[in-house]
Amino acid sequence: MEFQYPYLLFLGDARDQLAAKTANGVRVWRPDWCLGQFRFEDCKADCGVPDMTIEEAAEAGVKTVILGVVSRGGVIPENWINQLVKALELGMDIASGLHTRITQIPELVKAAKKHNRSLHDVRHPSREFDVGNGINRSGKRLLTVGTDVSVGKMFTALAVEQEMKKRGFDADFRATGQTGIFIAGSGVSIDAVVADFISGAVEWLCPENLENHWDIVEGQGSLFNVSYAGVTLGLIHGSQPDALVVCHEAGRPHMRSMPHFPLIDLPTCIDVNLQAARLTNPDVRCVGAAINTSRLSEEEGRVFCDKISQEIGLPAVDPLRDGVASLVDQI
Amino acid sequence: MEFQYPYLLFLGDARDQLAAKTANGVRVWRPDWCLGQFRFEDCKADCGVPDMTIEEAAEAGVKTVILGVVSRGGVIPENWINQLVKALELGMDIASGLHTRITQIPELVKAAKKHNRSLHDVRHPSREFDVGNGINRSGKRLLTVGTDVSVGKMFTALAVEQEMKKRGFDADFRATGQTGIFIAGSGVSIDAVVADFISGAVEWLCPENLENHWDIVEGQGSLFNVSYAGVTLGLIHGSQPDALVVCHEAGRPHMRSMPHFPLIDLPTCIDVNLQAARLTNPDVRCVGAAINTSRLSEEEGRVFCDKISQEIGLPAVDPLRDGVASLVDQI
Repeated sequence: MEFQYPYLLFLGDARDQLAAKTANGVRVWRPDWCLGQFRFEDCKADCGVPDMTIEEAAEAGVKTVILGVVSRGGVIPENWINQLVKALELGMDIASGLHTRITQIPELVKAAKKHNRSLHDVRHPSREFDVGNGINRSGKRLLTVGTDVSVGKMFTALAVEQEMKKRGFDADFRATGQTGIFIAGSGVSIDAVVADFISGAVEWLCPENLENHWDIVEGQGSLFNVSYAGVTLGLIHGSQPDALVVCHEAGRPHMRSMPHFPLIDLPTCIDVNLQAARLTNPDVRCVGAAINTSRLSEEEGRVFCDKISQEIGLPAVDPLRDGVASLVDQI
Repeated sequence: MEFQYPYLLFLGDARDQLAAKTANGVRVWRPDWCLGQFRFEDCKADCGVPDMTIEEAAEAGVKTVILGVVSRGGVIPENWINQLVKALELGMDIASGLHTRITQIPELVKAAKKHNRSLHDVRHPSREFDVGNGINRSGKRLLTVGTDVSVGKMFTALAVEQEMKKRGFDADFRATGQTGIFIAGSGVSIDAVVADFISGAVEWLCPENLENHWDIVEGQGSLFNVSYAGVTLGLIHGSQPDALVVCHEAGRPHMRSMPHFPLIDLPTCIDVNLQAARLTNPDVRCVGAAINTSRLSEEEGRVFCDKISQEIGLPAVDPLRDGVASLVDQI
């Protein structure tokens, strides 16, 4: 799955700012790609880019309309479809992060075919993969892992890519979830792959490369989250990482949505992830921790990171507050 | 997915005995369910049950025709379809273990609809699952794990179920692969589930039960096989096992199809599986090892099992040669 920028962020009738979280992530990390946003009158979200009609977007040179928003009720309403058909007629592709597949909406399929445009459902893999083989491949890879879901694995990977590029590294972010895929312009929604092919899909996503090239792979789930640990393990084996960054949210009371599961401590989390990763790369090491300290005051956050850093004997930073320079220093 | 016995084993034009491996497994473990086999003239396999025409099978009371065979070229040939349509007309269901979906063959779909019969593609889950939640549930569960794929995890689970039933335990084999599903008459092809739902599908497969009831869950893959470890981890977390049996093939030179991966030793294999399993059941323990010693002489096999038993401090048996009584003794 690979699509063309620049983008129009289609926000539709998003009920609040959170419903447009994906679009907003794209705007934050790829501001140059986001020429504008499309909003109906009752839209309650704003990504801070110019409002545009579909016609204005085409005029401005938009290549792909991004549906990076949660629609009310999860379905794609008729008034969205009319606008999207217009976008196809005017030469733009459409990429959707919704569960509902745009590739199964007859009006869109028909218009895309007629105007030779592409429809992308980023949550649903559009190709088949081989099973993973674990054969050692050239190039370097860093994977973000974590104590739980939603602890900043995508943010950290993007921050590491940015910092490495700033220092002249040859580095690429590799996306494994919908927001990341819009930001990268390509990728695989790894949690939607058939179970047998998790590690194989990851091998495809970050294939062999030049000896000094770094792929910065977006992690998913956690070995300690029972819902998604299988996905995480396939990501670890498939990415064959040279370096891990472990991500954590300070002050989270228990595993997300699971009060019956306490959080794991960072040293154990690192040990278990390294143990799993050694199967495909015996030389893997952890280069530090990325802590989301947004629940704490700035002062409390610093104290928390210092404490973690002492516990693990490695840098621990809040990527948003501190940047990730001290993590990249370890590479 | 659940279907009715007795069965007709449809062997078609199987090119050799190995091509009918699945049908043969069903015959070995459920001899009473297998009333006969259907073979074309050039069939090179034989499951040792009476040959029957489709008409004779209907007459004998067969409820489901089992396609437990590898077809030449992987497609379902026209002469098979004609016979299968006849089976539907005569009131039998069809269950297929082929990759090609019988639910996408128009002639079969039409005939099944007309005669109100069912078509089952056991390799493809026919329902959606929730994500796993890891909440502690009543009932006891035993899971077979292993050093690699194809080391006897299904065989061992079935042998344990048989031994437990003989001793009056309330026990059920829970199938996670195609042969197992035919043998159990139900189950989930766990490696074909979408990655996000592996542990959730397993929770569905072996749900809460009476306090003294045992589910004997068929394992898949291995935490040490990079191709399938994600599936294995979801199985471990989802089955919340009280007991593990670790399976191994004596004398295997390296991981199957992967000369670049050596086999793991049994003590490490047990440790890593227990560590993973403790996330959803802190009281999990390993009750012993099941070793396929078919590459060795009987004498060598006994020596090998004794050595393993000393290494792990638990019984180690060849289930085919010794039975699994000493494993069940540990429960």
